[in-house]
Amino acid sequence: MSHERFHACIEECIRCMQACNHCYYACLEEEHAAMMKECIRLDRECAELCAFAAQAMSMSASYAMDVCRLCAQACEACAEECRRHDHAHCRRCAEACLSCAEACRTMLA
Amino acid sequence: MSHERFHACIEECIRCMQACNHCYYACLEEEHAAMMKECIRLDRECAELCAFAAQAMSMSASYAMDVCRLCAQACEACAEECRRHDHAHCRRCAEACLSCAEACRTMLA
Amino acid sequence: MSHERFHACIEECIRCMQACNHCYYACLEEEHAAMMKECIRLDRECAELCAFAAQAMSMSASYAMDVCRLCAQACEACAEECRRHDHAHCRRCAEACLSCAEACRTMLA
Amino acid sequence: MSHERFHACIEECIRCMQACNHCYYACLEEEHAAMMKECIRLDRECAELCAFAAQAMSMSASYAMDVCRLCAQACEACAEECRRHDHAHCRRCAEACLSCAEACRTMLA
Repeated sequence: MSHERFHACIEECIRCMQACNHCYYACLEEEHAAMMKECIRLDRECAELCAFAAQAMSMSASYAMDVCRLCAQACEACAEECRRHDHAHCRRCAEACLSCAEACRTMLA
Repeated sequence: MSHERFHACIEECIRCMQACNHCYYACLEEEHAAMMKECIRLDRECAELCAFAAQAMSMSASYAMDVCRLCAQACEACAEECRRHDHAHCRRCAEACLSCAEACRTMLA
Repeated sequence: MSHERFHACIEECIRCMQACNHCYYACLEEEHAAMMKECIRLDRECAELCAFAAQAMSMSASYAMDVCRLCAQACEACAEECRRHDHAHCRRCAEACLSCAEACRTMLA
Repeated sequence: MSHERFHACIEECIRCMQACNHCYYACLEEEHAAMMKECIRLDRECAELCAFAAQAMSMSASYAMDVCRLCAQACEACAEECRRHDHAHCRRCAEACLSCAEACRTMLA
């Protein structure tokens, strides 16, 4: 399996990792950080899975597709949580997560 | 420190991670894999440091700049090794490494 | 889900990560590195999945069990390849992989 | 450089990664999560650097010592923050961080 095939999906994973990491960092700075705890936790999980998926795809790891499946799930869970909040960083994160989940699911189809 | 500041450098790290991972994978498939062992080893090291640097920058980690310094060094070492080989994947990897090293050094300046 | 529950499995993942990384490094130094290319590749994959699984379990990530499932598969694939070779590092790696796969499967049961 | 040499330090890094990840998870569950935001952030940073250092040492990466230096710094920063809090998870994390920092510094000496 060629790494080119994964190119679009890697790009989405990295875009999503950045949005999640930014949202994570910004949530910790919010006044009501306690309300954001689930968002912080899911941002972190999603960012780490996106990074791992990008690495797995770019090295054509045999488990790349399985990691993409987990990545799609983590993205969807993170998007669902982010949509509950009005912060701009949460909205941007939700968008990036949904876009990444779609890229992963397209590749898995 | 804002994550936007890191944007260009993150992009270069991800581009370099992909080139290193592709070169790593392709070197293992070369007929004379034994000749490529240093390239394989440095590709791997560079890919992992690039991925870690991208993650560190995008979460505005306090050690982000220090990781970029190590990343620049790993990129330069990997580029030097890749330039010794004629394979297309090695040449592309050397270019990506030098470009990433420059992006890291610019940011550190 | 408490992180204590994962303790034994984390220990096995780390032991396996070390054995795989050592086998990876030693395979690259073998005279017949070309014969070892599949071993090198699977060592690398297994080491990265073990490290990711240990991190996921210790932060009680929601995807921890799914990653353990992938980890068990990667360990079994790596063990199967390592058993084809007589090098001491390959034998030790095969043992660590099987032990880690068992720990993952026990936890998933 | 042999991976055996790194053995004790790898063990400390993994022990510290676990303590940091547990503290991170527990801090998010505390009633006053807002007061814990710096602890959450530094736990996360320290856990990721410890994991990266353990991986780097066990694959005898050329940058292993440099990563250990950064790891020692991250451990010391995390320990300092954790000591400001009375939670049992913070106290255990501070201890693990100081022990890991010492192991890294011993190896660098």
